[in-house]
Amino acid sequence: MRAARYYANSDIRIEEIPEPTVGAGEVGVEVAWCGICGTDLHEYKDGPIFCPRPDIPHPISGEAAPITLGHEMSGVVYAVGDGVDDITVGQHVVVEPYIIADDVDTSSDDYHLSKDMNFIGLAGRGGGLGEKLAVKRRWVHPIADSIPLDQAALIEPLAVGYHAFQRSGAAAGDFALVGGVGPIGLLLSAVLKAEGLTVAVSDMSGLRREKALGAGADHAFDPREIDVAQAVRDLTGGRGADVAFECTSVQPAMDTLVDALAPRGVLVVVSIWGQRGSFDMQQVVLKELDVRGTIAYVNSHPATIKLVEDGKVNLAPFITGKIGLEGLIDEGFDTLIHRNETAVKILVSPSGAGLGG
Amino acid sequence: MRAARYYANSDIRIEEIPEPTVGAGEVGVEVAWCGICGTDLHEYKDGPIFCPRPDIPHPISGEAAPITLGHEMSGVVYAVGDGVDDITVGQHVVVEPYIIADDVDTSSDDYHLSKDMNFIGLAGRGGGLGEKLAVKRRWVHPIADSIPLDQAALIEPLAVGYHAFQRSGAAAGDFALVGGVGPIGLLLSAVLKAEGLTVAVSDMSGLRREKALGAGADHAFDPREIDVAQAVRDLTGGRGADVAFECTSVQPAMDTLVDALAPRGVLVVVSIWGQRGSFDMQQVVLKELDVRGTIAYVNSHPATIKLVEDGKVNLAPFITGKIGLEGLIDEGFDTLIHRNETAVKILVSPSGAGLGG
Repeated sequence: MRAARYYANSDIRIEEIPEPTVGAGEVGVEVAWCGICGTDLHEYKDGPIFCPRPDIPHPISGEAAPITLGHEMSGVVYAVGDGVDDITVGQHVVVEPYIIADDVDTSSDDYHLSKDMNFIGLAGRGGGLGEKLAVKRRWVHPIADSIPLDQAALIEPLAVGYHAFQRSGAAAGDFALVGGVGPIGLLLSAVLKAEGLTVAVSDMSGLRREKALGAGADHAFDPREIDVAQAVRDLTGGRGADVAFECTSVQPAMDTLVDALAPRGVLVVVSIWGQRGSFDMQQVVLKELDVRGTIAYVNSHPATIKLVEDGKVNLAPFITGKIGLEGLIDEGFDTLIHRNETAVKILVSPSGAGLGG
Repeated sequence: MRAARYYANSDIRIEEIPEPTVGAGEVGVEVAWCGICGTDLHEYKDGPIFCPRPDIPHPISGEAAPITLGHEMSGVVYAVGDGVDDITVGQHVVVEPYIIADDVDTSSDDYHLSKDMNFIGLAGRGGGLGEKLAVKRRWVHPIADSIPLDQAALIEPLAVGYHAFQRSGAAAGDFALVGGVGPIGLLLSAVLKAEGLTVAVSDMSGLRREKALGAGADHAFDPREIDVAQAVRDLTGGRGADVAFECTSVQPAMDTLVDALAPRGVLVVVSIWGQRGSFDMQQVVLKELDVRGTIAYVNSHPATIKLVEDGKVNLAPFITGKIGLEGLIDEGFDTLIHRNETAVKILVSPSGAGLGG
């Protein structure tokens, strides 16, 4: 079968590799669609970060580079291993792509923070940019046939937004400010709207602001044109935002969120920062703010899938491209790196079947 | 009566001023003891910060400099105003020294975060470094006669520690790391021990570390001699601290706390920073840390008083000096500024009565 294999920085190859063996307790998934994630781009441009080097196998997967890429996948079950009796061939599924040590209690609420945690499609165990993969039953989530498989590939990044919402402790009626509406900020905004919050976004890109408004955001601000924190206070009777979400890893954008928060407000840091971030500590202390990190998802998939099944989040508008494996670098990565205002999510059909070819 | 009046930076005068009028709804308190707080020192060296300038009255108190200093006070009720029927002359009390706007709901859980909040003894309404003051009934807390009045003057800073503990969400059995054991860090450590936590402290001063151990801390580390974060991991089966308290406003000390925290750990920022503070955002995100500001106290006095009444916190060891008003600058401020390793809390008897003179 064909797969996109990460060898090293700037070295991803489309190769023929053996099909996986579906072992006991595993589910064989034929990938329908796999999204390209910002993390994949980082591995390509600046990596390896999550990916193992060729000489240092990942401590849990035991695999070293090259590994198959892709962790935002939907697919169809083509085989079930011994002992798997609650899922059937033909079922539509998405994968919660965790690589987690065997001794971790995956019914806990913090399994995603366990030692050496990593991701299928970044540190081994196959990936969504290959035609098939074998996944432990625990990480396979069936979805209703009513969700188109292309949209289903966006459930993984939507779960990132859902978990950020969970971390915020926000509830219906709260006022949220989202700083930066790249793919995660957009999907997060859609979750917040679905959960009944008022949503304002701030982004320098007019195209991204338009997309956010199209996805249901109530307000979209250009931070170069207006004082965003003051605009939020004006909209909240002088109080400020209840919650804010940092999706830029840019210092001035984070400062704006801190300034916009009400007393006891919560700032959730969603983006992965390559540098240190600083805070006006007087505001943190005198407003008793709460700055919370969030990473990936934990027990988030069932609720996230339900949002989509119930029609509360429409994922169709976020799909801005569909390609085959052969176009991964030239059409996929290059578009996302160089035209990241118009492109949101580009989906890959590893077998090409989804492209009607 | 005599009082220490703050005029400006480096200008505090001991003066004769009129006694306060005890109005309706107010309680007249004759001050027994008043502690000197780090905030008072800041106002003296770097202020005015909380204190109003001579030309800009505080928006709630309506008072401009000079104002009477002192907000850590114990005393005896000498008069009650009209409508006060649940407190009697002769009762021992402490003051929760808030200046808060009349339209704020002081039964809420965030009255201390209300607009223009300030403190008695910093922005008007008298102060504990005067012989008497009139205080709204809401801010007067009776204490058992079993608490010596000198120790009772420490209930205000102890309440700061108690509120920091409240903000942390920590519970008995948790492992706490306190960064910096000046007066607040010491009192906070005593609260944490009383609440059943395991307490480690980190401080460069051997004298302060000794005091912390004397106050019940289980471990005291010199950050120049050992890797404090690693020591905490060694003590917690590799996990790290559940909660950490930042009481230094020093960047490397805060970095150590962030490093020492377990996944989902909580860092409470207690100190007032004059500069920005920075974070290793990767740790904040990948460990899903929670950084919380805390300021002063809110509904914290009853539980704090009970800790002392029940003998769970012994405040006696923290009193390292007793002086009269005339010694405020030379004996009080100078000692705390220049000998801050040996001195913890210096108490002032405004009338001199407590000094047996």
